[in-house]
Amino acid sequence: MARKDGRQLDQLREVTIERGWSAQAEGSALISFGGTRVLCTASVMPTVPRWMAGKGKGWVTAEYAMLPRSTNERMDRESVKGRVGGRTHEISRLIGRSLRAGVDMKALGELSITVDCDVLQADGGTRTAAITGAYVALADAVAWAQAQGRVPKSAKPLVDSVAAVSVGIVDGEPTLDLNYLEDVRAGTDMNVVATGRGLLVEVQGTAEGAPFDRSELDALLDLALAGTARLTELQREALA
Amino acid sequence: MARKDGRQLDQLREVTIERGWSAQAEGSALISFGGTRVLCTASVMPTVPRWMAGKGKGWVTAEYAMLPRSTNERMDRESVKGRVGGRTHEISRLIGRSLRAGVDMKALGELSITVDCDVLQADGGTRTAAITGAYVALADAVAWAQAQGRVPKSAKPLVDSVAAVSVGIVDGEPTLDLNYLEDVRAGTDMNVVATGRGLLVEVQGTAEGAPFDRSELDALLDLALAGTARLTELQREALA
Amino acid sequence: MARKDGRQLDQLREVTIERGWSAQAEGSALISFGGTRVLCTASVMPTVPRWMAGKGKGWVTAEYAMLPRSTNERMDRESVKGRVGGRTHEISRLIGRSLRAGVDMKALGELSITVDCDVLQADGGTRTAAITGAYVALADAVAWAQAQGRVPKSAKPLVDSVAAVSVGIVDGEPTLDLNYLEDVRAGTDMNVVATGRGLLVEVQGTAEGAPFDRSELDALLDLALAGTARLTELQREALA
Amino acid sequence: MARKDGRQLDQLREVTIERGWSAQAEGSALISFGGTRVLCTASVMPTVPRWMAGKGKGWVTAEYAMLPRSTNERMDRESVKGRVGGRTHEISRLIGRSLRAGVDMKALGELSITVDCDVLQADGGTRTAAITGAYVALADAVAWAQAQGRVPKSAKPLVDSVAAVSVGIVDGEPTLDLNYLEDVRAGTDMNVVATGRGLLVEVQGTAEGAPFDRSELDALLDLALAGTARLTELQREALA
Amino acid sequence: MARKDGRQLDQLREVTIERGWSAQAEGSALISFGGTRVLCTASVMPTVPRWMAGKGKGWVTAEYAMLPRSTNERMDRESVKGRVGGRTHEISRLIGRSLRAGVDMKALGELSITVDCDVLQADGGTRTAAITGAYVALADAVAWAQAQGRVPKSAKPLVDSVAAVSVGIVDGEPTLDLNYLEDVRAGTDMNVVATGRGLLVEVQGTAEGAPFDRSELDALLDLALAGTARLTELQREALA
Amino acid sequence: MARKDGRQLDQLREVTIERGWSAQAEGSALISFGGTRVLCTASVMPTVPRWMAGKGKGWVTAEYAMLPRSTNERMDRESVKGRVGGRTHEISRLIGRSLRAGVDMKALGELSITVDCDVLQADGGTRTAAITGAYVALADAVAWAQAQGRVPKSAKPLVDSVAAVSVGIVDGEPTLDLNYLEDVRAGTDMNVVATGRGLLVEVQGTAEGAPFDRSELDALLDLALAGTARLTELQREALA
Repeated sequence: MARKDGRQLDQLREVTIERGWSAQAEGSALISFGGTRVLCTASVMPTVPRWMAGKGKGWVTAEYAMLPRSTNERMDRESVKGRVGGRTHEISRLIGRSLRAGVDMKALGELSITVDCDVLQADGGTRTAAITGAYVALADAVAWAQAQGRVPKSAKPLVDSVAAVSVGIVDGEPTLDLNYLEDVRAGTDMNVVATGRGLLVEVQGTAEGAPFDRSELDALLDLALAGTARLTELQREALA
Repeated sequence: MARKDGRQLDQLREVTIERGWSAQAEGSALISFGGTRVLCTASVMPTVPRWMAGKGKGWVTAEYAMLPRSTNERMDRESVKGRVGGRTHEISRLIGRSLRAGVDMKALGELSITVDCDVLQADGGTRTAAITGAYVALADAVAWAQAQGRVPKSAKPLVDSVAAVSVGIVDGEPTLDLNYLEDVRAGTDMNVVATGRGLLVEVQGTAEGAPFDRSELDALLDLALAGTARLTELQREALA
Repeated sequence: MARKDGRQLDQLREVTIERGWSAQAEGSALISFGGTRVLCTASVMPTVPRWMAGKGKGWVTAEYAMLPRSTNERMDRESVKGRVGGRTHEISRLIGRSLRAGVDMKALGELSITVDCDVLQADGGTRTAAITGAYVALADAVAWAQAQGRVPKSAKPLVDSVAAVSVGIVDGEPTLDLNYLEDVRAGTDMNVVATGRGLLVEVQGTAEGAPFDRSELDALLDLALAGTARLTELQREALA
Repeated sequence: MARKDGRQLDQLREVTIERGWSAQAEGSALISFGGTRVLCTASVMPTVPRWMAGKGKGWVTAEYAMLPRSTNERMDRESVKGRVGGRTHEISRLIGRSLRAGVDMKALGELSITVDCDVLQADGGTRTAAITGAYVALADAVAWAQAQGRVPKSAKPLVDSVAAVSVGIVDGEPTLDLNYLEDVRAGTDMNVVATGRGLLVEVQGTAEGAPFDRSELDALLDLALAGTARLTELQREALA
Repeated sequence: MARKDGRQLDQLREVTIERGWSAQAEGSALISFGGTRVLCTASVMPTVPRWMAGKGKGWVTAEYAMLPRSTNERMDRESVKGRVGGRTHEISRLIGRSLRAGVDMKALGELSITVDCDVLQADGGTRTAAITGAYVALADAVAWAQAQGRVPKSAKPLVDSVAAVSVGIVDGEPTLDLNYLEDVRAGTDMNVVATGRGLLVEVQGTAEGAPFDRSELDALLDLALAGTARLTELQREALA
Repeated sequence: MARKDGRQLDQLREVTIERGWSAQAEGSALISFGGTRVLCTASVMPTVPRWMAGKGKGWVTAEYAMLPRSTNERMDRESVKGRVGGRTHEISRLIGRSLRAGVDMKALGELSITVDCDVLQADGGTRTAAITGAYVALADAVAWAQAQGRVPKSAKPLVDSVAAVSVGIVDGEPTLDLNYLEDVRAGTDMNVVATGRGLLVEVQGTAEGAPFDRSELDALLDLALAGTARLTELQREALA
């Protein structure tokens, strides 16, 4: 049974990763999941937040934002509103936590990396595209830090890659990588972050409509882990 | 194998629900999960947010906050800092979504209910205690609205009850209802919101340390659903 | 001539003080003046504000806030509005000033104590209940600091106790400890803060309706000082 | 016994009132209490705040602010800090309440007057100078509104004039109209707002140092009421 | 005499305009001036600001912002800082004013167009690239509105095109279209906005170092007008 | 051809400079350009902004603001709105840049001077009056710093004076020093900042209506430089 855009239920949208899109950031990637396009830039800074100083460990964090006209209707800028919204905060925290799952902070040493994920165009799945692209930018920033001698060349700060995908129950069917229109129709919506080795980093499932049972949860997890496995391959190709 | 506080791995802390703690709110409950104490008050308002107006449907939302000295170290007030933090936003949104899973907005009709969850004392699991107590406050507010004739007496706005509990892998063992010290030590941390009928509303699992595999996820879900089943009973007793 | 709630004109509402309500704060009290309930927690911090540093003196300050549904109509949270309102600021400053009148900052030494007064339920006189309860929390925090050796055991940082009460002219009669409905009807409204020895710390009288003359002012002061004397006794009992 | 600046204990500083200083406001006055200079402008607006609409009554409010270099040390602007401070809020509210004591809102009818009091130079007593000058600006704004026919010519919106002065116990002596250096040294500090007929509108006494007793309070009130009586005369001359 | 990057003093950087970059906006262009890349999206909204309503005229406005890592050093987000900076405000206002010079608001009719200019990568001249790209996005948005019948097809809302370029005195030589390194070295810096017909819309010249004289000003204006004439051609090609 | 207020096209309004208006600031001037009155106060501070520290150079900055009723219609205070508006920011930055053009930061040494320009009454040209008055306040603050020995007496921190004036095309005629009504009618509006020696510091020309050509620009510049030459004389007289 095919979807509106012709995909199979377990098929990702076309994913492209333009590594090194930015001439200035230490690592960067412009990632597309179909019509969703996110610019991810990683910035290496020589210090860590105050509460971490002096522990010989590094820090990785992220900030997510949407351009005002990345959506169908123009949204007001959060800078103009004078406050960062709850959804933005939540996704920024999710991306940061997800990336940290792939990093050995001891091996990174006392420096910090901020990955900015700016959504240039949104068509569903912006947070999962952001995590998947942010890992590529992060990997390049770590490589840069090692090439610069800021992190010892023998160190292995990256312990595993990290990718993410959305799944949901659309018209009663477990479905992979929802676009905006599918997301709106989904009864249950789940974002899954997994490592290159297939372990779970984050599972966030929400009943937007009717609550769901264990068997639906299991079906969604199967679908998601197949999706993150495929994204892991694409990350490897981009970083090759 | 017993825990520091003598509990079994699958045992809740002592849970108490003081229904009707507030003389002013349309519904209220002071809930304790051990040392965690949350005051939940439900306020019925005759209008809905502008984007919902005229659809003949109601709205339920929530706001979560911690008193500055609910924790071991005093925190600055968010009002003084001039902005609501990301964690606060995130939990407020979670509580609101969870409560809405138990409500038929059509049956509620065009009015809105805000449930404020203020943490008076925090010892882990504040968000799950808040959801569990908020449902009790909400149920009383709905009953009040029906008694007042603001919602038809024949309507059934509450379709299911909602309760929540935290689980985590502490020292390698799946463990129910973590207190603060356990939460700090947990490698994986999960909050599960379920209905009285045992369906899932929200699953939020996070690898704070090492990523987790499917079998660990399954063990945590089993534990959590047993916990929410017990909390459902306690809600029923409180509302009886 | 009796009042709506059966009290005499010179009679306080029922006052209860639950000392040590919080397991975490260095001092705490849940105080009730009738339906007004305020949770006061005192936090000891090892530093003083920058402008006081290095003088060998301590500092005591306070923050007052109301829960959104402590009142009959739900109020928006100041954290959500992004700013602390004028009334909140004013009362926080009043409580801080009042408490400092009872403390020898030299004897306290270079540490600071913040007393948070959160109104859980409001029925008039929240600021006077807050001051009266805050003193109890403060006294316990000072005792804690002395027991911990942070303040020398021989020092006497507390020079006098501090309590407060409201008075007003209601229906032409000078009246003690107004509840919300009386406060709304009062032509003149006055808050008086006094020490255990009966000296005045703060007198704030306001003509809400018609201006008042000296004799009315005198009658109100007599009433208030009798009230604070009675509150001083209740503080002593709570701290015994 | 004379003061540093040669004044008697019961003597005001030189007070000047430049009525109509502003070419644009409906009423205005530049008032000086010695080195304290406050520009007061009254603006008539055809509407009242939403919560008052449709009652046929008017509203008078005030805003107080200090220029950043009105003081000895430059202060940061509240606009740059992004929030109005507690002291500013408190004084704005005091001025508004004081002015309203002189106005019959029914006679004013459904319009509002905002009096802005901007301290151009501060040398103690800025709030009392502001109240005294604000009344003059208000009186002219009311006259303007009557001349324009916005308030019936037969109406009497001004029921009494309002003036204010500070008093304090300086070096043990009750003293009138403190300048900045006296204010810093004062043990007790009191601001008194009174009407032209000599009735009290507001009494705010604070023990900055040692608490005070009833007899000191009485002496301060005597001094203050003599001061406001003299200020009332000066207001009359200015408005003649 | 050639520049570091090989350009003649009167030569623009390579300029590219990707018209229609965004699938969602009514008009869009990704413009590059060398390493400076700005995404311009135009949003048509059916209403005008309140102060313009009912006049039968339209409105055009703009918002400018830089991504945090568009620059060599990562900048904090203005949304996180909670306020829009002065430079951002200033440039947003400049872009809006410049675009309005090309529009007949009467012919546009009562709708408004907001052009968002988000700098993805910055290498000097971001505001002039933004204006030049914003005009292309605006032109497409107007065409869209006419195709949709929101603006009569016979109307001519665009009266002239608008383009902008920077000039400056670098090492004593009047120089066109400064990149970041040239901009830092420039003694005088000027931004010129001109119409397709060669008239001036905005001239903003600033002595960053030594003040400049009339003959220098004249030389800069000549250079700038040649530059905007060339940019006008490129806009025409993009819109063809 | 004379103007509404009887002036010639090339005639300034009556300009008065009350030097030393403030008793507290290190330098001050109350300047009037006709009905426009701006209070300028210069504050000397012993430190420079962090990004300049340790370079042995000084810093000069400015802040501009309007009193709420300096205009015909009362404006909301920026402190109450919680943010500084774009126009305010822009003018503050302009004044600071203009003043710095007259100062040798090396000769000033490591201290900073902030000039506050508060518009007490506005009738057009507030930014140009502010710059002209701010220079007088700055000159006195520099003299104070030299008298105090904070800047060596032999140093020459002031290299040139700075003055500013507005010009515009009103009813087709190039016109000097526009008042509010002329400013509203002007098709093109330009602010010119020049030094005492007649060099240009800042040229900001804007087509409010129709774009302008080079010959109009030239005529406006001639007019403006004659105006700043006259203002330079008045500054010299004030400082004599």
